[in-house]
Amino acid sequence: MNSIRNFLPFSFTKFPKFLIYLFIIYLIFPSVIINVVEGTEVYINYTYSGDTGPRFWHLLEGSSEICECGKNQSPIDLTSEDIKNLAPPPYPNFTDITDVEALNNGHTVECCSDDMSKINIKIEGKLYTLAQFHFHTPSEHRINGKYFDVEQHLVFENEDGINAVVSVLYDLSTKNSTFLDPIISNLPKICNETKKLDKVELLSLVHDLNSLSQTYSYSGSLTTPPCTEGVTWFVNVKPLNIGMQQLLELRQVTGFNSRYTQTRH
Amino acid sequence: MNSIRNFLPFSFTKFPKFLIYLFIIYLIFPSVIINVVEGTEVYINYTYSGDTGPRFWHLLEGSSEICECGKNQSPIDLTSEDIKNLAPPPYPNFTDITDVEALNNGHTVECCSDDMSKINIKIEGKLYTLAQFHFHTPSEHRINGKYFDVEQHLVFENEDGINAVVSVLYDLSTKNSTFLDPIISNLPKICNETKKLDKVELLSLVHDLNSLSQTYSYSGSLTTPPCTEGVTWFVNVKPLNIGMQQLLELRQVTGFNSRYTQTRH
Repeated sequence: MNSIRNFLPFSFTKFPKFLIYLFIIYLIFPSVIINVVEGTEVYINYTYSGDTGPRFWHLLEGSSEICECGKNQSPIDLTSEDIKNLAPPPYPNFTDITDVEALNNGHTVECCSDDMSKINIKIEGKLYTLAQFHFHTPSEHRINGKYFDVEQHLVFENEDGINAVVSVLYDLSTKNSTFLDPIISNLPKICNETKKLDKVELLSLVHDLNSLSQTYSYSGSLTTPPCTEGVTWFVNVKPLNIGMQQLLELRQVTGFNSRYTQTRH
Repeated sequence: MNSIRNFLPFSFTKFPKFLIYLFIIYLIFPSVIINVVEGTEVYINYTYSGDTGPRFWHLLEGSSEICECGKNQSPIDLTSEDIKNLAPPPYPNFTDITDVEALNNGHTVECCSDDMSKINIKIEGKLYTLAQFHFHTPSEHRINGKYFDVEQHLVFENEDGINAVVSVLYDLSTKNSTFLDPIISNLPKICNETKKLDKVELLSLVHDLNSLSQTYSYSGSLTTPPCTEGVTWFVNVKPLNIGMQQLLELRQVTGFNSRYTQTRH
């Protein structure tokens, strides 16, 4: 035993006791330590109800006052006037992606894949690469005060860390969404659970979108804390179809995860 | 002409000019006068989006600060813990009602009938009479962060003007709601439009509710301005069915008219 002690770069007897206690706490309650560590960096403990709900996001540790006092916050309620001025859809090079990981992060179901780095859009000469997509139920954006059942956000990022989001609305229909099928068949149901999806057919999604309409573009914010502004939004104003069973299964997992619409300035 | 002037209880020449101008304005913009008059009494010009949305209801003329600083505001997100403690459903004498008027009041579809005065519930010895019922899409109350497609509020009032609300949740299903059928077939689609319904089968509604479960009761508030507190709530925690086509037709009229859940104290 003595020889092992000499081999180690520190002495057990001199090893700070608080680190030993910390290690024991970690063994018993790993999530406590993880949340404390994440809280100082990126993790914000927000919800969609009560005193950590959207009304109070500006007060949360790691969040920002911009959630309360920002002048370009998202989502918004689009008017008939807005959707007179539509931009062309900005997705020329979408392809199907493989080896997708669907993560239940406690707020939504978020899908990632290394393949996503192949998919990008260009805004004012700058390249934005797809980072992930996720779902909100019911929709966050509204059109003339009407909401939709699901809103999918395809989140892009440029080399400066600035985001752009392509938003896809889905409305209840007798027709299922082919695109959503593999995702809804493999939903991670518990917080922090992940599921592997062999393939996600973004090509079929883009095909459906292109056949529908153009998009409403505006400068807004992330719809979750820290509500960072400078986000370029492309909202597809005509919804795609989602079947009843698909909707019930998706929102059984996502619950209510929609920020209320923000004041426009 | 002189003889007519003498017959009138006032002189045209002496008639206050501002009343004549007011009358002319009324002829041109009747809604302006109606809103001004109503604004001082009961009319509050609230919405569910932007700067007259739920976040700002406490600032609206005719509303109350209680919308912002009340300690017993509704709706709330019910937890598993809450719904362990259920009360018996409080509706013994419901009957079908006839000659119902369904009004689109710009916020919801509200159903009234003289017959409703026959329907009452007793809370702590006091009689509360049914005044009207109306609909919210999606639901205002949530259960463990999950929302439902529709929430119906049956609003009762006692002789002191204190309210109680029986809340009925509806969730998307392959089965239609028989109770909702005559209402959804006769929706007043435009603001201020009314439709006459020969009969509304409250008996069938109560039958469905009784067969389901008990209710969660708590002391809350109106979920619309002026957000008055002291309202006794009875929330039926198991949803009834609403068919897809029924839901689509109802929410095409009601849009998003759901206040965000409130902090619990």
